Amino acid sequence: MKHLLGIKELSSAEIEEILDTAENFKEVINRPIKKVPSLRDVTIANVFFENSTRTRLSFELAEKRLSADVINFSASSSSVKKGETLLDTVNNILAMKVDMIVMRHSSVGAPHFLAKHIPAANIINAGDGTHEHPTQALLDAFSVKEKLGDIAGKKVVIVGDILHSRVALSNIFAFQKLGAEVMVCGPITLLPKYIRELGVKVELDVKKALEWCDVANVLRIQLERQQIKYFPSLREYTLYYGINKAMLDSLDKKIVIMHPGPINRGIELSSDVADSEQAIILDQVENGVAVRMAVLYLLAGQVN
Amino acid sequence: MKHLLGIKELSSAEIEEILDTAENFKEVINRPIKKVPSLRDVTIANVFFENSTRTRLSFELAEKRLSADVINFSASSSSVKKGETLLDTVNNILAMKVDMIVMRHSSVGAPHFLAKHIPAANIINAGDGTHEHPTQALLDAFSVKEKLGDIAGKKVVIVGDILHSRVALSNIFAFQKLGAEVMVCGPITLLPKYIRELGVKVELDVKKALEWCDVANVLRIQLERQQIKYFPSLREYTLYYGINKAMLDSLDKKIVIMHPGPINRGIELSSDVADSEQAIILDQVENGVAVRMAVLYLLAGQVN
Amino acid sequence: MKHLLGIKELSSAEIEEILDTAENFKEVINRPIKKVPSLRDVTIANVFFENSTRTRLSFELAEKRLSADVINFSASSSSVKKGETLLDTVNNILAMKVDMIVMRHSSVGAPHFLAKHIPAANIINAGDGTHEHPTQALLDAFSVKEKLGDIAGKKVVIVGDILHSRVALSNIFAFQKLGAEVMVCGPITLLPKYIRELGVKVELDVKKALEWCDVANVLRIQLERQQIKYFPSLREYTLYYGINKAMLDSLDKKIVIMHPGPINRGIELSSDVADSEQAIILDQVENGVAVRMAVLYLLAGQVN
Repeated sequence: MKHLLGIKELSSAEIEEILDTAENFKEVINRPIKKVPSLRDVTIANVFFENSTRTRLSFELAEKRLSADVINFSASSSSVKKGETLLDTVNNILAMKVDMIVMRHSSVGAPHFLAKHIPAANIINAGDGTHEHPTQALLDAFSVKEKLGDIAGKKVVIVGDILHSRVALSNIFAFQKLGAEVMVCGPITLLPKYIRELGVKVELDVKKALEWCDVANVLRIQLERQQIKYFPSLREYTLYYGINKAMLDSLDKKIVIMHPGPINRGIELSSDVADSEQAIILDQVENGVAVRMAVLYLLAGQVN
Repeated sequence: MKHLLGIKELSSAEIEEILDTAENFKEVINRPIKKVPSLRDVTIANVFFENSTRTRLSFELAEKRLSADVINFSASSSSVKKGETLLDTVNNILAMKVDMIVMRHSSVGAPHFLAKHIPAANIINAGDGTHEHPTQALLDAFSVKEKLGDIAGKKVVIVGDILHSRVALSNIFAFQKLGAEVMVCGPITLLPKYIRELGVKVELDVKKALEWCDVANVLRIQLERQQIKYFPSLREYTLYYGINKAMLDSLDKKIVIMHPGPINRGIELSSDVADSEQAIILDQVENGVAVRMAVLYLLAGQVN
Repeated sequence: MKHLLGIKELSSAEIEEILDTAENFKEVINRPIKKVPSLRDVTIANVFFENSTRTRLSFELAEKRLSADVINFSASSSSVKKGETLLDTVNNILAMKVDMIVMRHSSVGAPHFLAKHIPAANIINAGDGTHEHPTQALLDAFSVKEKLGDIAGKKVVIVGDILHSRVALSNIFAFQKLGAEVMVCGPITLLPKYIRELGVKVELDVKKALEWCDVANVLRIQLERQQIKYFPSLREYTLYYGINKAMLDSLDKKIVIMHPGPINRGIELSSDVADSEQAIILDQVENGVAVRMAVLYLLAGQVN
């Protein structure tokens, strides 16, 4: 493994190796001294063509905990505006003797394109358009495994805007490869037409989905690009797909609630659900650093 | 002391302890080797919801001089725009194993709210709306003490837009707690109605204020939000409240001139005053790093 | 040498010293361990009043490879907007015990102004308006020397928008001081009227220029400020001044192709030229880090 482009490209064994390595790093970041010298001589560029808070911070912290040298590059101050190609931009960064590229890009396949054309660096996909967000799926899998002991045989439902979500696609691949059964649930307008071909169950009724599952991964409605055409109003989305405490309490089991953040409290999740014992949302954030450390650690040096 | 929320919450003894500690750090930052390993295993996030140059740089340098790991987070690229609550944003950062939060926020009381709801981190207020800016007041006190030997018994006037200034309020608390007498001076429209209840003198005539004081802390007129309704024109503000060399030379003593920066030369201060021997404006900047090192050093570890 | 303001101020011997020192650093950045402790106790502020990707990243990497402490300051979040003078801004940064200032500024002469008024810091010009960009010229000279063994006696043509280019002016000074013959070539509207006074040849026909030269340094057309008044259309610029493979193949020698980046592929250079063996564009980028390390290393400590 030289790049991390998507979960699709990973074998179950590779995923398991990342999760096992992450377990060690989780122990590291909970020590008083959270730093290890593993990547002391490695330079990593975080190249973000889309705004991001948590993912960029999480990668940056992971890199610093591994003692890497870190360079941040954001599109807003970049040459991209000046008409430079993506390949030229990245080749320029690499010519400055950068070893690894962590990239978020709005175009589907951008990291795959880089990996194909650039032989001498590790490329890590931090989200490509509506396609994949592999480290998110890895941290989600890590968090479920940590909470439930095992993933194989578990039932995971992903709720919300499946159509536009890179988290959804990466989650489907990851949980299936680890032996879980996956369902998607959301308004019909937000489910891709091809979705059954991925081997997932489809459910339009969120209550039935919650009754079925062990884990519900609840996606956020992207208020900032409020897609009026996909559902009539936020209020109706919340009425039909929002998850509240009464719904959870009506189940005969305690399901696990996940959310990739940032949460719209009162829309896809009520506040008492987000803050309940069943929610592992902040564990996901913590595990994100450990999982990203594992990915960087395993990829570093897998070049040349 | 676990947080630094405002000067209001500090005792005189706590302020003195910070100033004494800052004296040591001032010596450190004037050595050829300006770095100490004190916070080697501490991670600090600078979370700025308002733009800032000098305060952010000053904190960042203070953190680096103490060998802390530093993460910068600015609202412009943040999840806040996506509808996330302040508490969720900060809890997310902390879940990544950040130890201390230095926050500037446009809302009065934002750091106090965090401190109440987040037990396991140190919160440092780097300015909350028009309320407090405690490290500015501490560096101002440090600078006066350095210049005049003592603060008790001194007369300090704060000149300008008292109504909107967080520097003014923190200064009033700090200088009073350290035994100084405090006066405010400015157009009546820029003085809060409650101001006498804080035990300060009020003076509308800047010449009389200068005659009275040992130290004049001159606030900047915030050109970028030029509040036309508070005074007729900048020109008139300068005519009535601007301080020039002739005014200083007409006094029978040499008063100390302070300014929190950035200066509008020719508006609240003439250039020859800003650059005079009486002005300690650049000392304030230098002392800012030492004082912030002291605050970070004293708070670190005061948790759990 | 205390500052690096422009190539104009450097002697040939000083340029040679920088290039020789850069050779050592190029060796360093190609080691597995790319870091040296040379500037361990030096703090450098990168003060960029204009957006920049490659120059800022290159300086930041150079600084980190030298183990300096690095502070980034960009105008977009700066006090400049609040009406502060340049001198006050920089004096504030220096008061925080910063040792070196790397500055890009849109005004011609801004770094010279600083150097005159600030005795106690090293000022490095990272581009001042349309005037000079000295580290770019130094890395260009280094790259030609590396490729051709020597600069003295070589023929260098600079092609494109000479009028607005700080790269052009610094290149003219650098290559002339190192004994090369320099020609400029571009539309007559993009050649400064005084240009012959600098002792350069002038050629309007790019084919003749290529026939004459050993090295062609091709400037970019700045699409983002597309100056409709200087030439009729981009298409016509490319027709008359764009360099393609057929043109290179028609020459009876292999000339060296340089470009300061970012490239507009298909405009000033065709893609097959940019990616050809004759192009040393990515070497320039790599050498930029080594040359900037050399400049920082040589200037550090040349103060007081």
